[in-house]
Amino acid sequence: MSDTRFDVLGIGNAIVDVLAKTNEAFLIQEGLTKGSMRLIDEAEAERLYANMGPASEVSGGCAGNTVSGVASFGGRAAFIGRVKDDTLGKVFRHDINAFGVTYSTPPAPNGLATARSMILITPDGERTMNTFLGASTELTPAEIDADLIAASAITYLEGYLWDPPHAKDAFLKAAEIAHGAGRKVALTLSDSFCVDRFRDEFLKLIEDKTIDIVFANEAEAHALAQTADYETAQSFLKERTELAVITRGENGAEAMRNGEYALAPASKVNDIQDLTGAGDLFAAGFLYGLAKGYDLKVCLTLGNIAAAEVIAHVGARPQTSLKNLAEQAGLKLS
Amino acid sequence: MSDTRFDVLGIGNAIVDVLAKTNEAFLIQEGLTKGSMRLIDEAEAERLYANMGPASEVSGGCAGNTVSGVASFGGRAAFIGRVKDDTLGKVFRHDINAFGVTYSTPPAPNGLATARSMILITPDGERTMNTFLGASTELTPAEIDADLIAASAITYLEGYLWDPPHAKDAFLKAAEIAHGAGRKVALTLSDSFCVDRFRDEFLKLIEDKTIDIVFANEAEAHALAQTADYETAQSFLKERTELAVITRGENGAEAMRNGEYALAPASKVNDIQDLTGAGDLFAAGFLYGLAKGYDLKVCLTLGNIAAAEVIAHVGARPQTSLKNLAEQAGLKLS
Repeated sequence: MSDTRFDVLGIGNAIVDVLAKTNEAFLIQEGLTKGSMRLIDEAEAERLYANMGPASEVSGGCAGNTVSGVASFGGRAAFIGRVKDDTLGKVFRHDINAFGVTYSTPPAPNGLATARSMILITPDGERTMNTFLGASTELTPAEIDADLIAASAITYLEGYLWDPPHAKDAFLKAAEIAHGAGRKVALTLSDSFCVDRFRDEFLKLIEDKTIDIVFANEAEAHALAQTADYETAQSFLKERTELAVITRGENGAEAMRNGEYALAPASKVNDIQDLTGAGDLFAAGFLYGLAKGYDLKVCLTLGNIAAAEVIAHVGARPQTSLKNLAEQAGLKLS
Repeated sequence: MSDTRFDVLGIGNAIVDVLAKTNEAFLIQEGLTKGSMRLIDEAEAERLYANMGPASEVSGGCAGNTVSGVASFGGRAAFIGRVKDDTLGKVFRHDINAFGVTYSTPPAPNGLATARSMILITPDGERTMNTFLGASTELTPAEIDADLIAASAITYLEGYLWDPPHAKDAFLKAAEIAHGAGRKVALTLSDSFCVDRFRDEFLKLIEDKTIDIVFANEAEAHALAQTADYETAQSFLKERTELAVITRGENGAEAMRNGEYALAPASKVNDIQDLTGAGDLFAAGFLYGLAKGYDLKVCLTLGNIAAAEVIAHVGARPQTSLKNLAEQAGLKLS
């Protein structure tokens, strides 16, 4: 196996977040399910935007957030995802490049606008996402750069990629190239509603070993295993994957790999501002650690440090060097 | 004098802020003067953007921030300023409307893009602004809606309007209409570099009573009076204006009107994140109080409450209801 040029390559929907603080009453008025992500079309996006409060625009998208976090730890990160050649597309490109992430997917010259997700943040820090996928749906197997994938220790795919019709094929092509080059493929289940939409397909990906590493939170693990019992869900994932990582909010995170088990308590956050990106940044820390060969306990701790940073402010990407935070926590990173 | 439909009408450059955290080294590398605002052209805007870190886009502009704050206190606010009919222009319009501000200036269909200010925030919370005025320079007297001005108790103008060539005429037309309708005209000196650029013209505006109310911070007061002595600067303003309001950072703020004097200590802020908008939001609270007929001490206190809210987070507009904050501070607003 040749040397890697990248620790983590993320493939996902390239999205700009439109973040607005709101209250419970607005969610009720709009008939929205708190904490969920729903897909909307452009007309609904316009309607909701006109009704929602003042917002800020910040680059987002799960895999994009994750690779930005990897880069913030000092890792070598790359991204594949499609924007349009428009203002928000330029914003997305600038921001991910500014983190030091390699991003060379060409922007779509025509077609739908760059994806945006209107994220409504309630006073408890929970976020309710309303996503217009736009140009993200133009990601096709043609955008999958085989050299990039072969040069990346881990290719990280978001479950949300299953939503746009052609991205699915891009996803499978990427996994095949990665394995052909002797690399690992990771999947985040994204959210429990996404698991509900694609349970059988995700199970097949896991069972036929298209995926080596699975990230899930508790709700996603329950949804995948179709059980209300956590231990059942945990065993279900453990038995089917090479490496299963489950985040449990305030209860910390755990990882299971071939009989090996590790648990790390959540990092303390005094004032949770916005949960957007918590899972994405946890994955950033974990994957960075994994690519660098740290043991599972350290990988989990790196994940917790990154998640704690991102929920202490509005926006889903780090605003502080994660490398510095890890070092302040006593972890000496290579 | 007929009833007012608006407490405060702001006229200013319609700008979207591009906010990025940075460090002192980057300012030195770019040759930037910390705390200043410099005007740049589109090419320099592109160059700087490519070099700066990941950013968030948030609606800004001094007068736009101020009227958003007035609305957040429950005041009736309106805004005049020019954007282009582009993505950032739509963002600006959405955000100011979402605060409840009346904004009906038509977007420019052609010409320069919507104005943006790249604001670099150092760890001390200080901001260094790099502004491409773009479509703001298309504000002309034709955009001055006489009915709107006649219906507003106070028309608030930003000193920065003196930068775009035609806005100056719009400014003078607005002041004339306001006085013709028996209304008040306020000016913020914007920043000490702006005062340096236009000292003689600002002095003339003050001396010929085009302006009734002047807002300045210490540096601006010193620059206008061309003195290093604060008491000299204070007297200079007091003698020439109907109402002079001077903000002095941690030393609080003072107001002087026909022999009347009021001082209010600054509100305490534990963790200053970003000084962007501090002066704009101070003006919001003060003007709201003035339009509602509160005494000077209360006006200053409202200004301090609003400034304290905005410097505790990134972004130059309130993220919490200022009306609620004022009520929590024991002020019962009508």
